[in-house]
Amino acid sequence: MNSSTLPTIKFLQQPTSAAWVEQALANLDIILLDHSHCERKAAGVALNLMFRYPSNAKLVRTLTAIAQEELQHFEQVNQILERRNIPLAPLAAPPYGAGLAKQIRRDEPDRLLDALLVSGLIEARSHERLGLLGAHCPEPDLARFYRSLMVSEARHYGAYWTLADAYFERSALTQRLEELAQVESDLLATLHPQPRIHS
Amino acid sequence: MNSSTLPTIKFLQQPTSAAWVEQALANLDIILLDHSHCERKAAGVALNLMFRYPSNAKLVRTLTAIAQEELQHFEQVNQILERRNIPLAPLAAPPYGAGLAKQIRRDEPDRLLDALLVSGLIEARSHERLGLLGAHCPEPDLARFYRSLMVSEARHYGAYWTLADAYFERSALTQRLEELAQVESDLLATLHPQPRIHS
Repeated sequence: MNSSTLPTIKFLQQPTSAAWVEQALANLDIILLDHSHCERKAAGVALNLMFRYPSNAKLVRTLTAIAQEELQHFEQVNQILERRNIPLAPLAAPPYGAGLAKQIRRDEPDRLLDALLVSGLIEARSHERLGLLGAHCPEPDLARFYRSLMVSEARHYGAYWTLADAYFERSALTQRLEELAQVESDLLATLHPQPRIHS
Repeated sequence: MNSSTLPTIKFLQQPTSAAWVEQALANLDIILLDHSHCERKAAGVALNLMFRYPSNAKLVRTLTAIAQEELQHFEQVNQILERRNIPLAPLAAPPYGAGLAKQIRRDEPDRLLDALLVSGLIEARSHERLGLLGAHCPEPDLARFYRSLMVSEARHYGAYWTLADAYFERSALTQRLEELAQVESDLLATLHPQPRIHS
């Protein structure tokens, strides 16, 4: 597979390498287990933001819907794990999430801006990678499942962007997004040896 | 209203006082806002337990469903707040939740047992109190809404009990439940001056 044939997603500075696709396809069971953790974590991130900004009606409404969808996906992935006899188990996280979390500045309103953009970037990358699995996974049922999730992942990164756009100046937003997107791509530039959704 | 006419719920040592019902009915807007916070917190508690026990398939499956329902209720309460022009806002929590959280022992497996029983007790109390609002609220739409939530709150306390029963000896379970239920009732014995779902 040539990386130039992979699709590019708005927001992402660099497309996922063909090496990741190969690693993931060779380790589908671990990728599924990690995917389960990702969906639960994504629901947790949305809920935490709702806890931190409880008065912010638009944010609360948007993130309630996102958290609900993430939990639905979590349930779907767990059903697939059960059918494949893969027991639920903890997995060491790749450096990706912590590396991005470190970029979130501490003081408001920067903290909110960064949190929304980081979540948007993670959703964008998930959208891209689930799309790659949907296109290249040799098991038709699983490929179909990955494709079915892509629509909501795309909606989620759009929703995080729309929230950021509602609360911040467009110019500040695009500049910060560019910085964070660079960090995001740098974190994935070297393939993490353990196969993960964000290795 | 005579407190002897109020229904009693299995698990709860003492029924809610008539004084709470009077306080709540006189402050429906604040009770609605606090109810919104309670639903979000309940989703958060379920999600946190899923994070702490990620390998525990039965727990994860049960709590995913509970978290989804709590988020659905959160959304419903927020829609009612919006229709009544009550803006989302933080509210000081009554001593109830922190008082119960303090009872959760630190070491496993006690920690899991206590966490499940405490959540079950909170759900049982919410079931009882939403039922009282459903029976006594003078606004028919709102009364209907409260009654509609009762079924799931009852299912939730049943689910927490069933989980505890799956992982622990019945005798240890009933003895600890009795202790925690006593603390729970004691925490509500004096009406908290600020109207809350758990004042």
